[in-house]
Amino acid sequence: MTEDRLDRQLTFLIEIDALKSVTRQSVLANRSRHENSAEHSWHLAMFALVLSEADPALDVAKIVAMLLIHDIVEIDAGDAPIHAAYDAAALLQAEEAAAKRIFGLLPETQQEIFLSIWREFEAAETAEARFAKAVDRLQPLLLNTLTDGGTWASNGVTEDQVYDRYGPTIERGSPALWSRARALVRQHFAAAED
Amino acid sequence: MTEDRLDRQLTFLIEIDALKSVTRQSVLANRSRHENSAEHSWHLAMFALVLSEADPALDVAKIVAMLLIHDIVEIDAGDAPIHAAYDAAALLQAEEAAAKRIFGLLPETQQEIFLSIWREFEAAETAEARFAKAVDRLQPLLLNTLTDGGTWASNGVTEDQVYDRYGPTIERGSPALWSRARALVRQHFAAAED
Repeated sequence: MTEDRLDRQLTFLIEIDALKSVTRQSVLANRSRHENSAEHSWHLAMFALVLSEADPALDVAKIVAMLLIHDIVEIDAGDAPIHAAYDAAALLQAEEAAAKRIFGLLPETQQEIFLSIWREFEAAETAEARFAKAVDRLQPLLLNTLTDGGTWASNGVTEDQVYDRYGPTIERGSPALWSRARALVRQHFAAAED
Repeated sequence: MTEDRLDRQLTFLIEIDALKSVTRQSVLANRSRHENSAEHSWHLAMFALVLSEADPALDVAKIVAMLLIHDIVEIDAGDAPIHAAYDAAALLQAEEAAAKRIFGLLPETQQEIFLSIWREFEAAETAEARFAKAVDRLQPLLLNTLTDGGTWASNGVTEDQVYDRYGPTIERGSPALWSRARALVRQHFAAAED
């Protein structure tokens, strides 16, 4: 390993420390504060390690890598909340520029590897990307059911809107996960009606 | 996947949300607050993804899994700061009990897998565990050089103590990383002398 190559890698690793300061809409299960995108990424990687056994054909290491890097673009582009209106084309452009700048800090051969993993996640066409997208939806859904509705309550989101906004992505990645998640959503709104 | 199996997995994944509330001694690079153990684990997994290419024989997926789970025992046992005195035997016992309780929430076959990965990390005998231990030391070292000495300054740690407390673990995992890290430490203390 040349010193220049290692220094580029360390520069990148220091730059992404900033993901710990990107705040998400979700609150932690203990309701003490909002979640940040770095600890969210750790949590999703754990979801993948634990849940991906359901389909032995999946490349778990690829899914974990996707989830570890999928939010790094938010350092420049910010977190786009699922329940707010935003300009999707502008966001796409901002995220693409962020990916080029941030992964561009790495040595050239690694830039290509990380950009390609990030683009595979974004495209959601491979089984691994679909599973990664599914857990990226499942985790905030679980946090919401644990925190009196969380971002659903604060955004006035109805039960049907939850099915619409979470269902297709989770089901496409894992029908079994959606079947369980759907029941938890029903249970949450049924309890709220009481 | 049976519903019971999935429910045990979700219970575990919700339980480990608590790692986001375990505070470490290190401060973030932007000095806004202390780091927590969940985002620290994410950062280390990124270190492994980027730096482990230095030795093609390493099982990167294993190292990443180790780093994702290595601090989960802190939910019960707390974070043992490197620069403070503590009862090592009592800590070991508390961590072993924590591992059994928390990984014990998982379905039985997964309990064994996660416990075995955690114990491999703790034993630091395999090349993967040594590399994981090395980046677990390297990351706070880097953060300290970026934050006016960070935990070294707040604990009155000398340059020689830094070499003693970080050197053996980093060098055993990767001599190339220690060579660079050592130079960064020297540079930090030389600048502080000016």
